[in-house]
Amino acid sequence: MNRPYSLGHSPHGETAMALLQAALAAVEPGRAVHRYVRREGDRLTVANQDYDLAAIERVWVVGSGKAATAMAAALYTILGERLTGGLVVTKYGHADPRLATGPVEVVEGGHPLPDEAGLAGTQRLVQLLAQAQEHDLVFVVLSGGGSALLTLPAEGLSLADLQRTTDLLLRSGATIGELNAVRKHLSQVKGGELARRAGQAEVVGLILSDVVGDPLDTIASGPTAPDPTTFADAWSVLERYGLTGQVPGAVRARLQAGLRGEVPETPKPGAALFDRVQNVIVGSNRQAAEAAVETARGWGYHALLLSTFVEGEARQVARVAAALAKELVHYHRPVPRPACLVWGGETTVTVSGHGLGGRNQELALAAALAMDGLPDVLLIAVGTDGTDGPTDAAGAVATGETVARARAMGLDAAAYLADNNAYPFFDQLGDLLRTGPTGTNVNDLLFLLAG
Amino acid sequence: MNRPYSLGHSPHGETAMALLQAALAAVEPGRAVHRYVRREGDRLTVANQDYDLAAIERVWVVGSGKAATAMAAALYTILGERLTGGLVVTKYGHADPRLATGPVEVVEGGHPLPDEAGLAGTQRLVQLLAQAQEHDLVFVVLSGGGSALLTLPAEGLSLADLQRTTDLLLRSGATIGELNAVRKHLSQVKGGELARRAGQAEVVGLILSDVVGDPLDTIASGPTAPDPTTFADAWSVLERYGLTGQVPGAVRARLQAGLRGEVPETPKPGAALFDRVQNVIVGSNRQAAEAAVETARGWGYHALLLSTFVEGEARQVARVAAALAKELVHYHRPVPRPACLVWGGETTVTVSGHGLGGRNQELALAAALAMDGLPDVLLIAVGTDGTDGPTDAAGAVATGETVARARAMGLDAAAYLADNNAYPFFDQLGDLLRTGPTGTNVNDLLFLLAG
Repeated sequence: MNRPYSLGHSPHGETAMALLQAALAAVEPGRAVHRYVRREGDRLTVANQDYDLAAIERVWVVGSGKAATAMAAALYTILGERLTGGLVVTKYGHADPRLATGPVEVVEGGHPLPDEAGLAGTQRLVQLLAQAQEHDLVFVVLSGGGSALLTLPAEGLSLADLQRTTDLLLRSGATIGELNAVRKHLSQVKGGELARRAGQAEVVGLILSDVVGDPLDTIASGPTAPDPTTFADAWSVLERYGLTGQVPGAVRARLQAGLRGEVPETPKPGAALFDRVQNVIVGSNRQAAEAAVETARGWGYHALLLSTFVEGEARQVARVAAALAKELVHYHRPVPRPACLVWGGETTVTVSGHGLGGRNQELALAAALAMDGLPDVLLIAVGTDGTDGPTDAAGAVATGETVARARAMGLDAAAYLADNNAYPFFDQLGDLLRTGPTGTNVNDLLFLLAG
Repeated sequence: MNRPYSLGHSPHGETAMALLQAALAAVEPGRAVHRYVRREGDRLTVANQDYDLAAIERVWVVGSGKAATAMAAALYTILGERLTGGLVVTKYGHADPRLATGPVEVVEGGHPLPDEAGLAGTQRLVQLLAQAQEHDLVFVVLSGGGSALLTLPAEGLSLADLQRTTDLLLRSGATIGELNAVRKHLSQVKGGELARRAGQAEVVGLILSDVVGDPLDTIASGPTAPDPTTFADAWSVLERYGLTGQVPGAVRARLQAGLRGEVPETPKPGAALFDRVQNVIVGSNRQAAEAAVETARGWGYHALLLSTFVEGEARQVARVAAALAKELVHYHRPVPRPACLVWGGETTVTVSGHGLGGRNQELALAAALAMDGLPDVLLIAVGTDGTDGPTDAAGAVATGETVARARAMGLDAAAYLADNNAYPFFDQLGDLLRTGPTGTNVNDLLFLLAG
């Protein structure tokens, strides 16, 4: 990855880049799978649970997401000839070359908008899963993008029906939780339905989390997780936003049939089928952040992981980060220097300007303004997938000199922030972080280093 | 102070109240002065500097601010008959009864808007100060409100001229730094001018800071601190906002005279007069936060002071606090439990609703929403002066049960937040913190406790 210009001005620059590399390496999809899935002969250990391959007839791998084929490839490495077959739906261009040969089929489909190719792939995946029986083991690999790619509308519904319903809810300001309550009740695979389709087989969900807090029922819309929401919840969401008359007739009919008990509910928490299901978060923001902290400690920094749950408006979250920077510089708290604070999560940007940027770049720009003049401190804000907003950068670097360096070039940092225009600001300074696509996605990271 | 209802539901409730009391006690104005001013016979020690009372002819106390008379009273206790005289300008109703007798006169004036009484008091204060000579020692006690109360326009200017200029700048969106650059150049006492008026006497500024970061040149407009800004800076602020033609003629004339060098600049950093000046921050957010952390450690909590520089939009800062709470509860980080995180600073609220509240109450409400359902965690957000916004509360308490308790009472927490209406929300829950006026002001504190 590139070395931003201002790193050369800071004694912490190289450390920051090493931390980022350590964090990304910890959540590389293959490594994430290998961390939790180990095999010694016939003994297969997944997290804390053992599976006896001698007693297992067939092993399947299904799943979806941008990193899903890399995860399936790791399973193929571990299981070799014991892998019976499978199918993974991934985004166009995201197939792992290691699956070009072997028993796992790869289907490419549309993301973020689902398309007919993804739907056809999901149909084939479901047909394959119908072969799974008692004494079989089914791995379900899931990662970011898995919800759009694993798409199979409930009987009688079309992709267009789902899309129209999602659009109406988003435009009404529905929360992601409300949106999911509706979508799970219009699908044959979301909300635990995929686990149900594995019949009497044992199911192991291996999940690379791109949702803050790692909620199993939300990541990829929870194909292997119990669904706490009901048809009644889904219907009241439509009522809340006055959409019961606006959604397609087939959607309305489906939900009303559900309310009348004419179609089965999604599997609920405590359902017997989940006795056969183990879900494991193999990689998440937590692992990435922990790897950064451990690496920093190895380099002699006093390192602290503050949170992996950080959310909020990027420019405001930046001010809290700057407040931490000031305390580090002025009072050597909360840890002595050299200090490294790490947090993770995912911020949002309420766009009011007309510029180009991403949430991490905007955070870095707001932090640069709040840290103006502060000596010997460096902040990096970065998206772990390598793509921050609609730009080719993963994030940016901010120091106490950023604003002055910009001023010397005739750039007004405050004006760029006001226009949501962080990308050209940092591009001109040479302070964009460009990692290229990383092949993983566990939200965002922030590192704060002080000498 | 009152015990909010939800404290009874949390094992941390009593701890939180004890922390708050410890924090407030540490910045009680008298205690703050006693911490830094000690006397043994003729040896008077202020911070690290010794003064020989046997070699000092007269000791004066002047100053301004809401806590200034309590600070002056502490000096009277220490100096007794060695105190020659003095004058302190405070807000109506804020005179300390211990000064009713003794050599220090108290004048009450207008705050937050300066009035003629404060101006007359400042005039008398300046006349008194003119008596100070070599071998004299002048204490200047300053606290929040000191800028409005210590008011003496430059020659030829009226209070109305100053007020009009301030109004124009505020309405134009000028920053506090820009505002101060102008005001200091229109005053006979701000921006180091008061220290200059002490002539050849030694000056000790004792300062209770109500400004985040404790900048000496900003607290009470820096009467005893070097002023880094110039007449040229002041003039370019007016130019920047297109106000050179709108400010009163006398203001324009004063600044132009300054530009031509016809009136002296404010004393600058490095000026010889500051060799005779020692400024000491006797109390600030830092001391209050440190006292809370030490108290928490004494109670067996793993306590960490994260920052004393927290600023930003209250409801967004709250989300970062909630992110810390989630990490504490789920992963026991950044410290093991029982855990206590402390931060300080001062948030702001951009009002869009029509409700009643204050920045700390709004922060607590937003945090309650973000922490909804989180077990065994308690957050307190409180203004150290006991007054949060235009309410009789100092702040509020939030836990993971707050939103559910409110729902059971028919209260929609999100709707109250949307209307900036935190006061009635917490009032109905019985979760307002009412300390009454505390007699001090060192911004705001936030405590986060998890078991």
